[in-house]
Amino acid sequence: MNFGMIEAAAARLRGHARVTPLLSSPFLDEIAGRRVWVKAECLQVTGSFKFRGGWSAVSALEGEGGVLAYSSGNHAQGIAAAAQAHGREAVIVMPADAPAIKVANTKAYGAQVVHYDRATESREEIGAKLAEARGLTLIRPYDEPQVIAGQGTCGLEIARQTAEVGVDGGDVIACCGGGGLSSGIALALEEAAPSFRVRTAEPERFDDVARSLEAGERVENEALSGSICDAIVTPTPGELTFPILKRLAGPGFAVSDEEALRAMALAFLRLKIVLEPGGAVALASALFRPGEIEGDDVVVVASGGNVDPVVFARAISTYGDAA
Amino acid sequence: MNFGMIEAAAARLRGHARVTPLLSSPFLDEIAGRRVWVKAECLQVTGSFKFRGGWSAVSALEGEGGVLAYSSGNHAQGIAAAAQAHGREAVIVMPADAPAIKVANTKAYGAQVVHYDRATESREEIGAKLAEARGLTLIRPYDEPQVIAGQGTCGLEIARQTAEVGVDGGDVIACCGGGGLSSGIALALEEAAPSFRVRTAEPERFDDVARSLEAGERVENEALSGSICDAIVTPTPGELTFPILKRLAGPGFAVSDEEALRAMALAFLRLKIVLEPGGAVALASALFRPGEIEGDDVVVVASGGNVDPVVFARAISTYGDAA
Repeated sequence: MNFGMIEAAAARLRGHARVTPLLSSPFLDEIAGRRVWVKAECLQVTGSFKFRGGWSAVSALEGEGGVLAYSSGNHAQGIAAAAQAHGREAVIVMPADAPAIKVANTKAYGAQVVHYDRATESREEIGAKLAEARGLTLIRPYDEPQVIAGQGTCGLEIARQTAEVGVDGGDVIACCGGGGLSSGIALALEEAAPSFRVRTAEPERFDDVARSLEAGERVENEALSGSICDAIVTPTPGELTFPILKRLAGPGFAVSDEEALRAMALAFLRLKIVLEPGGAVALASALFRPGEIEGDDVVVVASGGNVDPVVFARAISTYGDAA
Repeated sequence: MNFGMIEAAAARLRGHARVTPLLSSPFLDEIAGRRVWVKAECLQVTGSFKFRGGWSAVSALEGEGGVLAYSSGNHAQGIAAAAQAHGREAVIVMPADAPAIKVANTKAYGAQVVHYDRATESREEIGAKLAEARGLTLIRPYDEPQVIAGQGTCGLEIARQTAEVGVDGGDVIACCGGGGLSSGIALALEEAAPSFRVRTAEPERFDDVARSLEAGERVENEALSGSICDAIVTPTPGELTFPILKRLAGPGFAVSDEEALRAMALAFLRLKIVLEPGGAVALASALFRPGEIEGDDVVVVASGGNVDPVVFARAISTYGDAA
């Protein structure tokens, strides 16, 4: 894993992935007590940053043959869309409780979906068996160098876009499951804008990365399901990603489901973007943990927007009067 | 009104207005039967394209003194935000039934709000009296050259961004109240990308521009209220804007409130952006009037996203399963 791989991924993504905008609102700045810059990855192709890693990995494959991925939904869509565009078969192992919209979209991108029970089965085992039986190349959601490199392209854009608006340093908060996005951005910023520091955001009770960073070694979550932030519930930090985060990241944040829903409502009101709960935890950290942040500016990655309408309607109906 | 004024407005807006992204989704393309390119002006500062015209007009003022505007809400916010940034007082005349979020935001940008009854009072008369009594400069919402020039900067971006994705012509559908946005874009494209043609989109029963284009002269709407598309309900096309549209625009579209709500739900699902009803009628035209459009590509301006949470929640709850 090095910076050159991220630059190479950026070259492969050009014309396929979107350069997502860096948004802001004086109303959010007021809540946070500093300027908040929102990297709107929900506007990425397939509705999340995962398309970056998916395209990076699929476009780096040699030879022919299909791909296999396991995913709660966003990596699934990223891989499925990238595989379809490259004319490769895609098989995706998804939890039975994945949001309906993510399952439907993954199928619509031409992938075959295989379900498993998140609480009792191992997606890694199911995936490994299927990949071997059908000759598919497994693309892991975060412990995969080309995936990390793809997510790192988001960091290259943050470096360029913050320079354009005159921001020259501060915390960059990224939503964190296994750590592919945060470690990729950390590697990109280390070289392209070293005055920025990555920090992770997770749901409370599923803050394995924050606790691992504190402990200095990988620890596990007790629960494997039960958060509204389905996209970023993982058992433990990645083998590849954790050493990167340990070296480069600041202390992690953990926010409640309610704070994630409030951040979704504020993003709706103030930025006019659609965030899923797991895509809103970095924004929630910036808005509701101002005392844990230093500096006049904070950058947050709003990582995805694939949310079922009923969940979104509840968030904005309950918290949309937070004007 | 000429192309040079649009280029000059673009220079004044640089670093203040956002270059909004041109979004797309294969799911929308499938519904429309052609490629649909969505210029996401809901992501503009203040949540609508009106900031372009507001900034253009306020930044072109000479001398000191405050400004006055009448508006159902989006022009109000654009003027209020621009005036605040320029250190000028702003007084805004708004209908009593304007969405609460638009009134609250206009006040939050430091403007004084004066209400009137849309069905029985004339905002033009109230505005003229207030402006004279308090020495304020009136900035009309569309019949104002610098406002049209500001909205035209959206057309400059469309010309550049379509070229970047390899689209070299077709219809550009713009939501239309008085015609400031559509006439500004028409003037910009006439010079910058003449193979594109502007077309207007309005709510049914409030399609004064479409009917005026058909009649060759300005006709009026019978009703002045009663559409869910509050942002684009105007009595008749503008004096300055109509001759431009008559010369350059193709036939107008009219869509139902239900079609606008369905387009909002699809923009939520497929693009992860928040549209208000009046901001969704151009997208609705592209999706639900495919037989009235020619060519492989269509560009739509998604003009604003300032919608009350209850209306948005209803749209996505009712039509969000349109996957």
